[in-house]
Amino acid sequence: MIPILFAAGAERWDAWRDPLERSFREVGVTADLSQDHAPDAVRYIVYAPGSEVQDFRPFTELRAVLNIWAGVEHITDNETLAVPLTRMVDPGLTEGMVEYVTGHVLRHHLGMDPYITGALGWEPRVPPLARNRSVTVLGLGALGGACAQALAALNFRVTGWSRRPKELPGIRCLHGEEGLTEALSAAEILVLLLPRTPETEELMNVERLAVLPDGAVLINPGRGALIEDAALLAALDSGHVGHATLDVFHTEPLPAEHPFWSHPSVTVTPHIASETRPETAAPVIAENIRRAEAGLPLLHVVDRQAGY
Amino acid sequence: MIPILFAAGAERWDAWRDPLERSFREVGVTADLSQDHAPDAVRYIVYAPGSEVQDFRPFTELRAVLNIWAGVEHITDNETLAVPLTRMVDPGLTEGMVEYVTGHVLRHHLGMDPYITGALGWEPRVPPLARNRSVTVLGLGALGGACAQALAALNFRVTGWSRRPKELPGIRCLHGEEGLTEALSAAEILVLLLPRTPETEELMNVERLAVLPDGAVLINPGRGALIEDAALLAALDSGHVGHATLDVFHTEPLPAEHPFWSHPSVTVTPHIASETRPETAAPVIAENIRRAEAGLPLLHVVDRQAGY
Ligand SMILES: NC(=O)c1ccc[n+]([C@@H]2O[C@H](COP(=O)([O-])OP(=O)(O)OC[C@H]3O[C@@H](n4cnc5c(N)ncnc54)[C@H](OP(=O)(O)O)[C@@H]3O)[C@@H](O)[C@H]2O)c1
Ligand SMILES: NC(=O)c1ccc[n+]([C@@H]2O[C@H](COP(=O)([O-])OP(=O)(O)OC[C@H]3O[C@@H](n4cnc5c(N)ncnc54)[C@H](OP(=O)(O)O)[C@@H]3O)[C@@H](O)[C@H]2O)c1
Repeated sequence: MIPILFAAGAERWDAWRDPLERSFREVGVTADLSQDHAPDAVRYIVYAPGSEVQDFRPFTELRAVLNIWAGVEHITDNETLAVPLTRMVDPGLTEGMVEYVTGHVLRHHLGMDPYITGALGWEPRVPPLARNRSVTVLGLGALGGACAQALAALNFRVTGWSRRPKELPGIRCLHGEEGLTEALSAAEILVLLLPRTPETEELMNVERLAVLPDGAVLINPGRGALIEDAALLAALDSGHVGHATLDVFHTEPLPAEHPFWSHPSVTVTPHIASETRPETAAPVIAENIRRAEAGLPLLHVVDRQAGY
Repeated sequence: MIPILFAAGAERWDAWRDPLERSFREVGVTADLSQDHAPDAVRYIVYAPGSEVQDFRPFTELRAVLNIWAGVEHITDNETLAVPLTRMVDPGLTEGMVEYVTGHVLRHHLGMDPYITGALGWEPRVPPLARNRSVTVLGLGALGGACAQALAALNFRVTGWSRRPKELPGIRCLHGEEGLTEALSAAEILVLLLPRTPETEELMNVERLAVLPDGAVLINPGRGALIEDAALLAALDSGHVGHATLDVFHTEPLPAEHPFWSHPSVTVTPHIASETRPETAAPVIAENIRRAEAGLPLLHVVDRQAGY
């Protein structure tokens, strides 16, 4: 029996236990999954940020930490962690994000809001076709890449931006600081799907927001830290940014007094763009443990130097 | 020079003239396009419902009437019309409809409205994945078929319904009265893309609405006449239908006193789901005239017996 510690929040245990145990059986891993193994017995940790486990040194037999979230910014700089760290990439997480991003891009593209709120009556405003609408996605990883391709399949003109050069069919792929300026200047609708790292923090500052076309819409399901809030608020006030739909924030839940709540050009969603769902994520955890036991390379290993 | 009458509304002449003349040149049709040819000279009429031309008998040389709209209910029963009638099927019209339908299906699927209006604060409501959401599309023609396939590409479980049996990859295709009951009973989200014909008028009546699952959402970009308004209002009041997003109405513009305007569970859009755009539609008109001149069968001929 392989001792596996579930350190992803006691409140998640009920939802994750069965799917994990089923997935372990399906890949032939004979697991002893528990919330309270003795540290020096544990071989793998199923982990979530905010877990009570912050000091990994007592886990002398530890072989890997498997994060159930896609974002890993709260653990990458943990110096007590000396074994590989994996992050979550799973079909359900990707599908959920594609649905959120496609839905909100279409919402802004079609100009739905004034009809939904009733602000516009019988006043036809016909949008351009998607084939004449430019959308930029910052971050072309598991999530950003899938969103860019779903948008391209709907005929949007999609530009993407990543750290390293990339090729994706139907997407104009850019990288580097110059690429960023080009990507932003084309963005009638801008989607942020970057991880939070020292390099991406407050990427969307006064200067970068100024590069956007007038009236551009910003959609952020990435991380709150990607945006300098004061700069965004100023750009919204001036109308330079037409609307912001934000799912993630510097502080979550978004504090009641934060100006985003009452700003007429801001839509707040409460970090629901995409949830890790045990049914689709547990098989990914199980497969990685099967691989580790078989001496195969792990999937979705975090590059802790790069921070994601 | 082939005399072609533009009888699609004087207000459209400026937008259509250049695209039509360009398209005629491109397919090698030497056209004499005008708003006022002598009736007995005219060989083709570019037409829109509501045109001043209602009596076709003076057009003794007429070979075909080319409607610039997809819907033809206002001309199918015109007994003075004795030549073929074509309706509009064009890539721009289809793309626009796919964008409207996909956007509003995702809006309802994701439960966006209370976040857009601010009715919900930091209260996470995570929707199911599209792969666990059933959408039904009534009408699997040029528009309904394309919408069904775009929704299936986003992983929705799509059921479609048409008059005759049909096969579309990835879509559960039903037909007939029994098929309708099955299609409606699966419809968490229902999209109406049927034409208005004697058979489809007030199709969505008390009995058919009752078959929908509780809380179902109805999206109607087809025709207002497909719905019995009083039955829909009653179903919305009881909550049996959760929301209706309506683009088309028995009377347009929707009269100011109509209860749809103020109903909290109704979104009104002013017949903007998809516009015929001259740039993409003019080539379709030109191609059909080229075909007629070459003795080839016309595209998109209306079956006036069936009414669409
Ligand atoms: N709101 C939610 O519910 C939710 C849910 C899940 C995830 N998320 C967020 O979404 C983020 C992205 O997830 P993912 O799975 O797509 O991550 P990923 O696969 O690691 O992709 C990250 C992408 O960002 C690019 N990138 C990283 N640093 C960059 C830099 N300094 N400059 C330019 N590009 C840079 C990467 O470039 P390369 O391709 O060159 O490496 C890559 O394309 C997560 O980190 C998390 O913060 C949010
Ligand atoms: N809101 C807007 O902006 C807008 C814009 C354009 C069009 N429209 C509306 O959209 C409608 C559909 O356009 P389209 O181009 O897709 O039409 P289409 O290609 O003629 O397709 C009509 C579909 O409806 C089905 N149908 C017709 N009568 C039926 C009946 N009695 N029972 C079951 N199915 C029936 C047909 O079945 P079969 O496949 O068996 O023939 C076909 O699948 C138009 O008629 C128009 O009213 C609205």
